[in-house]
Amino acid sequence: MVNELIIVRYGEIGVKSPKVRGRFERKLIENIKTVIGGNVELKEGRIFIYPHDLSKAIESLKKIVGIVSYSPASVTRTNHESIKELIQSYIGELVEDGIFSGEDSFAIRCRRVGNHDFSSQEMAAYCGSVVYGITKSKVDLTHPDFELFVEIRGDKTYIYHQKIRGLGGLPIGTQGRVICLISSGIDSPVAAFLMMKRGCSVTLLNFNTHPYTSGSNDKIMKIYQKLKEYSVGAKLNLYQADYGEFLSKCIDKGPERMTCVLCKNGMYQIAEKLAIREKCLAIVDGSSLGQVASQTLPNILATHYSTSMPIISPLIGMDKVEIEDLAKKLGTYEISILPDSDCSAVPRYPETNAELPLVLEALETIDAEEEFKKVLKSFQLIR
Amino acid sequence: MVNELIIVRYGEIGVKSPKVRGRFERKLIENIKTVIGGNVELKEGRIFIYPHDLSKAIESLKKIVGIVSYSPASVTRTNHESIKELIQSYIGELVEDGIFSGEDSFAIRCRRVGNHDFSSQEMAAYCGSVVYGITKSKVDLTHPDFELFVEIRGDKTYIYHQKIRGLGGLPIGTQGRVICLISSGIDSPVAAFLMMKRGCSVTLLNFNTHPYTSGSNDKIMKIYQKLKEYSVGAKLNLYQADYGEFLSKCIDKGPERMTCVLCKNGMYQIAEKLAIREKCLAIVDGSSLGQVASQTLPNILATHYSTSMPIISPLIGMDKVEIEDLAKKLGTYEISILPDSDCSAVPRYPETNAELPLVLEALETIDAEEEFKKVLKSFQLIR
Repeated sequence: MVNELIIVRYGEIGVKSPKVRGRFERKLIENIKTVIGGNVELKEGRIFIYPHDLSKAIESLKKIVGIVSYSPASVTRTNHESIKELIQSYIGELVEDGIFSGEDSFAIRCRRVGNHDFSSQEMAAYCGSVVYGITKSKVDLTHPDFELFVEIRGDKTYIYHQKIRGLGGLPIGTQGRVICLISSGIDSPVAAFLMMKRGCSVTLLNFNTHPYTSGSNDKIMKIYQKLKEYSVGAKLNLYQADYGEFLSKCIDKGPERMTCVLCKNGMYQIAEKLAIREKCLAIVDGSSLGQVASQTLPNILATHYSTSMPIISPLIGMDKVEIEDLAKKLGTYEISILPDSDCSAVPRYPETNAELPLVLEALETIDAEEEFKKVLKSFQLIR
Repeated sequence: MVNELIIVRYGEIGVKSPKVRGRFERKLIENIKTVIGGNVELKEGRIFIYPHDLSKAIESLKKIVGIVSYSPASVTRTNHESIKELIQSYIGELVEDGIFSGEDSFAIRCRRVGNHDFSSQEMAAYCGSVVYGITKSKVDLTHPDFELFVEIRGDKTYIYHQKIRGLGGLPIGTQGRVICLISSGIDSPVAAFLMMKRGCSVTLLNFNTHPYTSGSNDKIMKIYQKLKEYSVGAKLNLYQADYGEFLSKCIDKGPERMTCVLCKNGMYQIAEKLAIREKCLAIVDGSSLGQVASQTLPNILATHYSTSMPIISPLIGMDKVEIEDLAKKLGTYEISILPDSDCSAVPRYPETNAELPLVLEALETIDAEEEFKKVLKSFQLIR
């Protein structure tokens, strides 16, 4: 392949103040370097990667957040003869690979940065004639079948034909660390990913509710592995807490309807304690308003109440189908739908309109604070 | 037009318990009836609307949340002769309108509920021959240019060719009321809409920060009108509070860097007081992590801290471009980008790493509690 480098575009970073922008760019480059070997440099608002292994690098970039799009490209010196030669070999290879042929219409998209003794339009016309010379293809500037991008930056000229879409977002590690409550269901892995996408480093916290669930870690470990692929540039820790005993106290001593509310309230409180230990600044969960019984507004109020750290629910305004679509793109959906036992602690008629005073009273009755101490002792760093 | 009714499909409601489902269905029908005149009935998991004004009803349904899709349809009795006659007039009209012609391939999609002396496949073949008889079009079951849906429900048969996509979500009024902080910017109207889409009734709260902004209400009123189009089935109140004086106190007495943090902390506290008065269960805002200086994790922690009601940020995990896309679909984007003065109170170097103790100290210095009393007195119900 004639491609020898990759041009990377990033988005929102562009609008930050110079100081913040610099920090974000450095972090993005650092993240890229952890998974792609080769030279990586920043120039004029673009990142230029000269990777040791181009096709591996193209794959890796798909999972690095903070990238808007990227183009495998070839480079040459900025003069008519060199550009002509490069286009000839570049187009020649595409024709050989069946990507472009004489039957396809085409357009040259030329951009120029710097001073040159030709205009962008003149260069586009010149390049168009070179392409025509090879394939006899028709030019169509409005709806071409094929586009060739010619990007002239000073004495270097880059040629590419693809703009591969990246994940968007902000580079991981630019926004501090958050605790994400995670199960092997469809929603919470998506919530964790969205926070990574907005630049957070993530610590995962899973509650093992055995014997009310199977207690198997197979699915959660698979989810962890999948999320880890995206956590480029930040350590992804997975903690697990034994929560079955607390849950049994909720069932034994709390009002039956309230099991789920007490369980969730406790999870946030435990998460807050871990968050402080791990220097996390917020708790993240996969709640989507009204999706299940526990996710009504009164229940959110009652379950959040005992925690003073912000609880962030990035899926709160999404429909189930929208969340499922994100999970499919992410690659966690297929794992989440693997057969698993439902939680047997869920009461027949779960509370949907929790009253805060009753919830606080029930937590007293359970002696939740004492129970939490046991849960905290059970913390295990699984990965 | 031969269409005389509209078949409406709704989504997530389908998975709820019978009791919850019944409540959601009744609310959706009630919402539909507030904007569409005519007969509306629920049957077998679908809503059938026989509107007074069909084309107006088709437009209205675009803005009612809780609807997955809908189809303008024609109905007849379930027997071969009646179905044939209906298809002839239905297809005849589409041909006349240039929607379907002999050059288009087509497919019949037949569904059947109930007992009949023919199978769905047999009926599909029969209807196909009727269509062929009119247009001589080719059948293509995999990639047809045109689909005709034949839905047989007992002794009634419905015919339609369109499935218009609805907004999705849950019917407004099924999830309680929330306070949405709203400005005329791009983000907060989208946040308010997403909570409506998840079934919330919404009360809008706008802070007038004159003289630090123009103080003009033109844009906010336009945003309000646009959101009102979607608030079918729940009153959409817009309150405004005079906030300029509190903001000037933040500037005069607080550390310069901290103006935005103090301003936001105060907004949540004010919102909570209004929320209690208006029986709202949560505060909603348009924060998107890392998008601007005030939306870092330490700042979120420091601004949320003084409020005990849940603060919900449905855009927290979204990129700016994603939010802009939603705003464009919603119709608020064009309003939000109208020229306006930026807030002149924003300091040159806004705090991005607020320390909670310093924030609380600054609020003491400002005597925020006293200032809030004045703000509360300034509340005006604008609409």
